[in-house]
Amino acid sequence: MLIKNGKVLIFEGEDVKVKDLDLRIEGENITKISQNIEAKENENVIDAKDSVVMPGLINTHAHISMSIFRGTFEGCNLYTWLHEKIWPIEDKLTEETVYNATMVSILEMISTGTTCVSDHYFFSKQIRKALEESGMRTAITRVLMDSDGEEASNKRIQEFIELYETRDINNDLITYTVAPHSFYTCSGKVLQKSRELADEYNLPVHVHFLESIDEIEDIKKIHGQEAIDVLRKYFDGVHTILAHGVKLNDRDVEILSKMDCGIVHNPISNMRLGCKIADITKYMKKGINVSLGTDGQGSGNNLDMFEAMKIAGLIQGGIHENEEKVSAKDVIQMATINGAKILGLEDKIGSIEEGKKADIIIVDISKSLNNIKMMPNNDIISNLVYNTDGRNVTTTIVNGKVLMENRNIKNMNTEEILNRI
Amino acid sequence: MLIKNGKVLIFEGEDVKVKDLDLRIEGENITKISQNIEAKENENVIDAKDSVVMPGLINTHAHISMSIFRGTFEGCNLYTWLHEKIWPIEDKLTEETVYNATMVSILEMISTGTTCVSDHYFFSKQIRKALEESGMRTAITRVLMDSDGEEASNKRIQEFIELYETRDINNDLITYTVAPHSFYTCSGKVLQKSRELADEYNLPVHVHFLESIDEIEDIKKIHGQEAIDVLRKYFDGVHTILAHGVKLNDRDVEILSKMDCGIVHNPISNMRLGCKIADITKYMKKGINVSLGTDGQGSGNNLDMFEAMKIAGLIQGGIHENEEKVSAKDVIQMATINGAKILGLEDKIGSIEEGKKADIIIVDISKSLNNIKMMPNNDIISNLVYNTDGRNVTTTIVNGKVLMENRNIKNMNTEEILNRI
Repeated sequence: MLIKNGKVLIFEGEDVKVKDLDLRIEGENITKISQNIEAKENENVIDAKDSVVMPGLINTHAHISMSIFRGTFEGCNLYTWLHEKIWPIEDKLTEETVYNATMVSILEMISTGTTCVSDHYFFSKQIRKALEESGMRTAITRVLMDSDGEEASNKRIQEFIELYETRDINNDLITYTVAPHSFYTCSGKVLQKSRELADEYNLPVHVHFLESIDEIEDIKKIHGQEAIDVLRKYFDGVHTILAHGVKLNDRDVEILSKMDCGIVHNPISNMRLGCKIADITKYMKKGINVSLGTDGQGSGNNLDMFEAMKIAGLIQGGIHENEEKVSAKDVIQMATINGAKILGLEDKIGSIEEGKKADIIIVDISKSLNNIKMMPNNDIISNLVYNTDGRNVTTTIVNGKVLMENRNIKNMNTEEILNRI
Repeated sequence: MLIKNGKVLIFEGEDVKVKDLDLRIEGENITKISQNIEAKENENVIDAKDSVVMPGLINTHAHISMSIFRGTFEGCNLYTWLHEKIWPIEDKLTEETVYNATMVSILEMISTGTTCVSDHYFFSKQIRKALEESGMRTAITRVLMDSDGEEASNKRIQEFIELYETRDINNDLITYTVAPHSFYTCSGKVLQKSRELADEYNLPVHVHFLESIDEIEDIKKIHGQEAIDVLRKYFDGVHTILAHGVKLNDRDVEILSKMDCGIVHNPISNMRLGCKIADITKYMKKGINVSLGTDGQGSGNNLDMFEAMKIAGLIQGGIHENEEKVSAKDVIQMATINGAKILGLEDKIGSIEEGKKADIIIVDISKSLNNIKMMPNNDIISNLVYNTDGRNVTTTIVNGKVLMENRNIKNMNTEEILNRI
């Protein structure tokens, strides 16, 4: 397959550039990036004229089955939302609902340019089934916790083990994380077990970390230590994916900058749930890898990573007065290469490079009424972050396979999925 | 004209509801709102099936000729941006550029559901010409200031007077404001003159007010008083449209709540220019009318009021930790009826009511891949604020006249305008 005539977004050192290039995909891989590549006989040519060709977006923290909670429970803070709203309903979810809800979210991701997602939920075999059918790349898990007792906790651990043990070793699109829910819902026992599983299976850990102000004291009560020290106690030396990281003090930042970890910024969810704004400008300056997530739709509204990018870029101006803050280029990296790094997949995905897997999206920037918010297009990268919506994505390719072309979803029945939900 | 089968957004007291209703437009006015209205012979029927029918959005602070600055000068704070970047370029603008840039912005507004805009710029006859051609509703002005000397200031005042005196008294789509730029760029002399013009012509005043932290001290230096006292000194008893109002202290809020004024919230611009977040939750609780604006595209990215709504709703969570904040319903009102009130047009526009002018937009919420971010549609109002983009607007009607139908702009040549810019 050859993608011709596009403006290709590439990383050069710390910089992000857009260049007129063609690229060839053979099998799963990007094999050639150059100007004016001639099509071979019978080669499938995708014309990317008036479009940006960029790495597929990597959503590093989501609960994709939560499409069914979209638009609900406005105005709750995190604790009320979890304890009084979400968990009581989640207790009644069925496998079928989770599968159907996941299929909607997969359509949402593919059609808005996400090629890889790191999920954090349960009924995980259903989620895996849906993701396998879709052809998306993913890191899945079965969330662990024991704040509701040991029996429920042991069942969760067994479900995780079964999920992992039943993996298809020939399908390297699907990877796994070990996911204790958080330090305020997990005792030391579950955290210790999580560490053992991470070591045994050689997997990263994906955990909610310092999301809201309320958990700070709760963690001290449960563990007798601050969150950062709990992290060090159980997960030092393990690669950890820390979702949120809103409430980091200077000591936390200092320690994290020396650990094998990264922070997933979920700006929309944080603001909806009354958690305020994570100072990612500071974290990145200190050398911490910061990637981007949407969280579930119940708190994050949707899974459109272009929205998450826009809002991540803007809201640093909500906490930095007349100060330097993350740039559009930083935000593009958060949504792509930084996401690949946090998932340990940076050798495979996250950028358009020869030898990497072909996880690529094509974004329409043509001079048209639908793109009027980009006109005049003085700066393509600024427009990608601030004036682009997931609907600008015309084509989505994962692992060399076209999942959407010219806004047509391949291999999934959109109408049926929407009717079923 | 009859709009049938839509879900009509109406205000009932403080509440916002969506109801299955039809509505009839005769001439400029909405004449009937009811269930199942039968079409008259030869009546133009617009089918609003799977759509929301809502009041046209009112953008109460913009500099619409600034489309040409889109995507430029990232990372500047307000003062640097104005003094070092924007003003030197604006000095070199021509009438033709302003006209062409305005036409692009008009396309942007009509195609994203804005039916009325309050503008704040110069070369105002060109802006008026473009707006007259478009059929949009507007409040225009010629901005006044004298920080660059008396001669330039007097020229501006003459231009404003000429703009107003050459108005078409038969065109009530175009109204006027008196617009001193700000208290840090205007001496008492210009403010006094502004007051006299407002009194003489019976016009509201539209002024930048406490946008950034820097202006607080500058205003004290120039006027020997705090901004709120300058406001009272020159504009007590005049209706004032206060753009931004980010840096209000408690005394300011208390005084404003008793004055004839309103605040235009411009969240995107404020965050881009390092001004942080206005506490509109507090202002509204204190009874101050808060409307919504995009500001110019140079700082506000675009003129899509759906984006401004989304971000206004979200970012209160950036400053209110675990606290009540504005709701999606509040935000809808900010973008419609509150905007009408701040412009003194609430008897004519801002809501769908019998007897009001037909400024109406139709928003597609059909079950489709393009609307996947709304699916399942558990809450239409939440989705309008948080999961809708201006591109969902299919039809835009101003004063009973259809300016866009099924995404086709009437009476303006989109291609020509885009090529010209």
